[in-house]
Amino acid sequence: MANLNQVSSSKMFGGYQKVFSHESSELRCTMKFGVYLPPAAESGKVPVLYWLSGLTCTEQNFVTKAGAQKYASELGLIIIAPDTSPRGVGIEGEDDSYDFGSGAGFYVDATQDKWKQNYRMYTYLPALINANFPTIPDRQAIFGHSMGGHGALICALRNPGMFRSVSAFAPICNPSKCPWGKKAFTGYLGSDANVWQDYDATCLVQKYSGPPLEILIDQGKADNFLADKQLLPENLMEACTSTKTPIIMRMQEGYDHSYFFIASFIEDHIRHHAKFLKA
Amino acid sequence: MANLNQVSSSKMFGGYQKVFSHESSELRCTMKFGVYLPPAAESGKVPVLYWLSGLTCTEQNFVTKAGAQKYASELGLIIIAPDTSPRGVGIEGEDDSYDFGSGAGFYVDATQDKWKQNYRMYTYLPALINANFPTIPDRQAIFGHSMGGHGALICALRNPGMFRSVSAFAPICNPSKCPWGKKAFTGYLGSDANVWQDYDATCLVQKYSGPPLEILIDQGKADNFLADKQLLPENLMEACTSTKTPIIMRMQEGYDHSYFFIASFIEDHIRHHAKFLKA
Repeated sequence: MANLNQVSSSKMFGGYQKVFSHESSELRCTMKFGVYLPPAAESGKVPVLYWLSGLTCTEQNFVTKAGAQKYASELGLIIIAPDTSPRGVGIEGEDDSYDFGSGAGFYVDATQDKWKQNYRMYTYLPALINANFPTIPDRQAIFGHSMGGHGALICALRNPGMFRSVSAFAPICNPSKCPWGKKAFTGYLGSDANVWQDYDATCLVQKYSGPPLEILIDQGKADNFLADKQLLPENLMEACTSTKTPIIMRMQEGYDHSYFFIASFIEDHIRHHAKFLKA
Repeated sequence: MANLNQVSSSKMFGGYQKVFSHESSELRCTMKFGVYLPPAAESGKVPVLYWLSGLTCTEQNFVTKAGAQKYASELGLIIIAPDTSPRGVGIEGEDDSYDFGSGAGFYVDATQDKWKQNYRMYTYLPALINANFPTIPDRQAIFGHSMGGHGALICALRNPGMFRSVSAFAPICNPSKCPWGKKAFTGYLGSDANVWQDYDATCLVQKYSGPPLEILIDQGKADNFLADKQLLPENLMEACTSTKTPIIMRMQEGYDHSYFFIASFIEDHIRHHAKFLKA
């Protein structure tokens, strides 16, 4: 992360929405990420909120569609939005499907020969943290959407104390049990489903013993992937209930899986995180 | 406008962001437009705000990037966002440049043989009005960005009383005098520059005699098209000053021409319009 190249910079809500590229030694390719710097970052260190995006996304989707910057500006938070997979690494078949390979890194470190040299999003993420921006190291939070909601939950659950809060929009809550997760985990991690548990929020919540995490989740009731059993929030709820893990699961009448849904509730999520980040 | 086909519908801020397609007899092609219906539209008629987009845009740019729906929901306004030109009409060369032809209709009715059958955006726009949505006919306002800011200004100035208010982000204020405008007007309207004045806000403001229009304009000082003399807000200011036309021209330090700039000030613009629409 030594060298960041600024790809773009636009003033927004008094701060700056920027995109940087850098050579990732972890992923062995050039990666881009978005960062919003609030006005408060000009004069001191501020907390940081990480956003992980869903299948097919780049860093652009969140940056252009979520409407988060207004609240990050007001509350004085940096928001970092990484890409969703290595790019252009030349693995045969990497661009063949929307839910595996490019744009579908699933925030795991692959163990299978074909993918393990590059598909290491789980280890890649911390490299973005605190490295180049005026962030306060112990004031971090994480959130995400769909595949990125899964990513946010597993990052928080596997790293007790690293994130003060975690939230998600329509996360893939139990990837070991849904078609997207089974395909991705088989491909990246192999066919032994026991190994998958380390990257499955519903499994991880059952062994979590770190500081209390008050998980906030919004899930649209009209989300077609909910109907398709890709998201399985009921399984995460059951695991949280049985382990007495605090969770706020809001089932939102009429909302789908899109960024229109995310934009509608992004303010709630950012204020939720600010409560913990600024406590 | 008899038959609208719903292309998409997503719940957003309690209302619905929809996209429709329809066969336009005016433009002789299939057109799409976006419409945000606030919760208040479910139980009665509400005012309507038209958004006109800039060069290269479709109806999607505003719908996904401007962050307008939150305020339209709160204030009970319908927002309609049309496309920026006819599409796929098969005129030779229509896709050859970003600033003429497809995506660059310039909100005029073309008079030149090659374009005049289809490029009639000026006449097309009113067909979208009140036809299919629960709008209050005498409570309409209009705004836009860049080429669409030009479009909003000329629509308001040429139709006294039709719009209660008009605003723009970085509008092309004096198209007769800038490279974009000269290219477009020569192509669509021919080489007689006298004809161009009917579609030039700086010229129109000098003969406007309708009800007072309190024009609101935001212009980023770091906008590269301002430096390139494509926008010429100073010419519109001069015309407004000499004719005592009320105008609020805000030069915004550090902001560029992007939707990040628009999103930063969209709330101000929608509240400005609501003041007149709900008076």
